[in-house]
Amino acid sequence: MPPPDPQRLSLNTATVRKQWQLAQIIEGCARHGIRGISPWRDQVAEMGLKQARSSIRSNDLTVPSLCRGGFFTAKNWLDDNRRAIEEAHALGAQCLVLVVGGLLEGSKDLSLSRNRINEGIATILPEARKAGIPLAIEPLHPMQAAERACINTLEQALDICDQLGAGIGVAVDVYHVWWDPKLETQIKRAGKQRILAYHICDWLVPTRDLLNDRGMMGDGVIDLPRIRGWVEGAGYAGFHEAEIFSELDWWRRDPDEVLRTIKDRHQRAS
Amino acid sequence: MPPPDPQRLSLNTATVRKQWQLAQIIEGCARHGIRGISPWRDQVAEMGLKQARSSIRSNDLTVPSLCRGGFFTAKNWLDDNRRAIEEAHALGAQCLVLVVGGLLEGSKDLSLSRNRINEGIATILPEARKAGIPLAIEPLHPMQAAERACINTLEQALDICDQLGAGIGVAVDVYHVWWDPKLETQIKRAGKQRILAYHICDWLVPTRDLLNDRGMMGDGVIDLPRIRGWVEGAGYAGFHEAEIFSELDWWRRDPDEVLRTIKDRHQRAS
Repeated sequence: MPPPDPQRLSLNTATVRKQWQLAQIIEGCARHGIRGISPWRDQVAEMGLKQARSSIRSNDLTVPSLCRGGFFTAKNWLDDNRRAIEEAHALGAQCLVLVVGGLLEGSKDLSLSRNRINEGIATILPEARKAGIPLAIEPLHPMQAAERACINTLEQALDICDQLGAGIGVAVDVYHVWWDPKLETQIKRAGKQRILAYHICDWLVPTRDLLNDRGMMGDGVIDLPRIRGWVEGAGYAGFHEAEIFSELDWWRRDPDEVLRTIKDRHQRAS
Repeated sequence: MPPPDPQRLSLNTATVRKQWQLAQIIEGCARHGIRGISPWRDQVAEMGLKQARSSIRSNDLTVPSLCRGGFFTAKNWLDDNRRAIEEAHALGAQCLVLVVGGLLEGSKDLSLSRNRINEGIATILPEARKAGIPLAIEPLHPMQAAERACINTLEQALDICDQLGAGIGVAVDVYHVWWDPKLETQIKRAGKQRILAYHICDWLVPTRDLLNDRGMMGDGVIDLPRIRGWVEGAGYAGFHEAEIFSELDWWRRDPDEVLRTIKDRHQRAS
């Protein structure tokens, strides 16, 4: 694979959330020539929606996605997702990422929780369509099934998309799906229309924590160029979003160093 | 679900491996009325194969499986698997569990590693058939794909079984497969002939370690009676093997307490 277009790099703001507030992250992206930024809603709220929007625009950054809607198994899911759609619209986000939520509180019933999630997505989809915000279901790694998302494979996510029609697709995060024996076929099946986001990082060996021990591209075992080949082969031409939750390493470093490393690794190891 | 037949309970010796050597585990099973024991090969070697065999027989225990063959991506895989088959035969084990191995050393090529694994299984299968030892592919949780097993779903394991014919099936360990949206259909697909082992424990919330933080049945979020219903519905009538790797809890307790708790939870929460 030839190296990717550097203009396709974007930053998920969680990657430096321990060091910088959103205003600093926006400035950091502009300073380092990273053209896309995907903010988390708590950071947007902290900065103020209007100010975030205005700063992102004045720095000429694109917002590939807003993180996140979802958590359909929690209370208040409907109001929360409506607000998420509004915020995505206000920020000019290209999609709203859905982390769909884990098991219903106190329940071991995966099937029931999954039905609730499917119903929740179906409920908010018309509002998302009206706002012009595509919904991106992000299948999470099976190790996060209990607590964060009962949608755990691309195949499962695409089955839901098949049922719901237009305005919905998937976020392909290599960390969650790299292991899947059906990854290549499901990326093909998703196709250009339904791959709404592509997230990169790496799987460390050993992995010391189930949530916050992601690696920098090139530091782990994921064959990133191969997966990018599949995604681009399916027609995806959007951003490559670096999203690295790293309690033990990257969250402890100088954020300018983190951004420099991401740019370098995007070119050399993604 | 009615509670399971207590005679179906077996113990995977890893569950108390930090406290007891194999001779003590055999005596412990007999003392607590646990009728099945699945030993690990390192413990058998330590005790001596002949002595292990004789002690298991004189205590009238069944050996549902020997743990383990596999690791087809490591060096010496062929000799090691031949020895495993011989040992399984000597112990009168009902099957040999295969933990198939992770990525080839220094490689990020999942596809190549998986091909190597498939070839390895195909190579040893005739010898296993000759010895009368069915091979049980154990799909491991995707979080162990890099280091321990690139076979990560029942569907993937059964696709391999379909190719290879008689003498091979799967070990269904709830810890590895509970999250799978296709679990029920793949258990049905496996059927009585190919479900060679059924392992129980629980998924803790939170899970603090990727390998050794399994929970006692009833302490986590796996709907064990439902999965047992599927497995029994497919015709499986073998043992329910408690296998609990627990660095932070059960490996620190009095092993007699561990065995008493397993017997109780097998009846009340499995």
